[in-house]
Amino acid sequence: MLNRLTLPVTLHAAEALDLRRASRDDLGAIMRLLSDDPVSAGRGDVGSADDEPAYAAALDRILTDRGNELLVAARASSPGEVVGTFQLTLIPGMARRGSTRLLVEAVRVSSAERSSGIGSALMRWTTDVAAPALGASLVQLTSDAARVDAHRFYRRLGFVDSHIGFKYAVPSAPSPA
Amino acid sequence: MLNRLTLPVTLHAAEALDLRRASRDDLGAIMRLLSDDPVSAGRGDVGSADDEPAYAAALDRILTDRGNELLVAARASSPGEVVGTFQLTLIPGMARRGSTRLLVEAVRVSSAERSSGIGSALMRWTTDVAAPALGASLVQLTSDAARVDAHRFYRRLGFVDSHIGFKYAVPSAPSPA
Repeated sequence: MLNRLTLPVTLHAAEALDLRRASRDDLGAIMRLLSDDPVSAGRGDVGSADDEPAYAAALDRILTDRGNELLVAARASSPGEVVGTFQLTLIPGMARRGSTRLLVEAVRVSSAERSSGIGSALMRWTTDVAAPALGASLVQLTSDAARVDAHRFYRRLGFVDSHIGFKYAVPSAPSPA
Repeated sequence: MLNRLTLPVTLHAAEALDLRRASRDDLGAIMRLLSDDPVSAGRGDVGSADDEPAYAAALDRILTDRGNELLVAARASSPGEVVGTFQLTLIPGMARRGSTRLLVEAVRVSSAERSSGIGSALMRWTTDVAAPALGASLVQLTSDAARVDAHRFYRRLGFVDSHIGFKYAVPSAPSPA
């Protein structure tokens, strides 16, 4: 939990949205948003009930971590209806004269709501409200090279694609005999 | 501090290296490693004494954060001589079925020691020892698009350049009148 963020807050896209901290009650909605995305689904986020314990444990880890916040956006007119989610991680650092960074991960907007301004409203709040409140001078994220529309979206918001993002999949530990 | 990492540890590159947690005594060495890099220097990391308070405050933030670790590598034959540094951030997450990630930032090796295997030894320890010890199934980092040699280095270690890294510089708050 990032204590210094003032939440919930109302944001204005095509309609009013309530942005708030995620709770355990949002587990199903977040799983649905992850599986409602072809790139995530291709990596195994298919919303299977078998995976629910792993997601629930991950949600607990995020909610109890003082450097992380998981957010959900719901329609103001229908508070149970979650239409977006993303995660923020506050990272102290030495580079850039001791800059603190705010990392954005797992931005997902319901496929039925894309291009309605929800993603822009969430990222504008992140750059203009959350980062200053947390003392971060840099907001950073990586986007899969296949997400061409997302790249256009981030560039339009003022993000600069100055870096290459590398990932290394750690081989699973062998099961005990 | 990432408690679950067993440190210090001896690594073997062209010579034996002691990898250990950074302390406040390493501030000058880390500032020198940052300024000993043209890309960092171009972003303002020039090792100026004027910037020392900002770096010292950043070092304190990292050393007291339970999700972060700042590491330094010194020659085993000359323990005061720091030849490399990097930072690890452990990030719980929902995507990829609740995967925990290990983010690597600010990898720097003394320019006099490049191509001596130090960087490989540090990153091999990160992927093969640190990530499993911390329960991370993915190691990730971004590298400035200008660092072509670094990209070759990470690919050789098995990292996949699947993502684009975006950065957004948060405008400084206006000074109070």
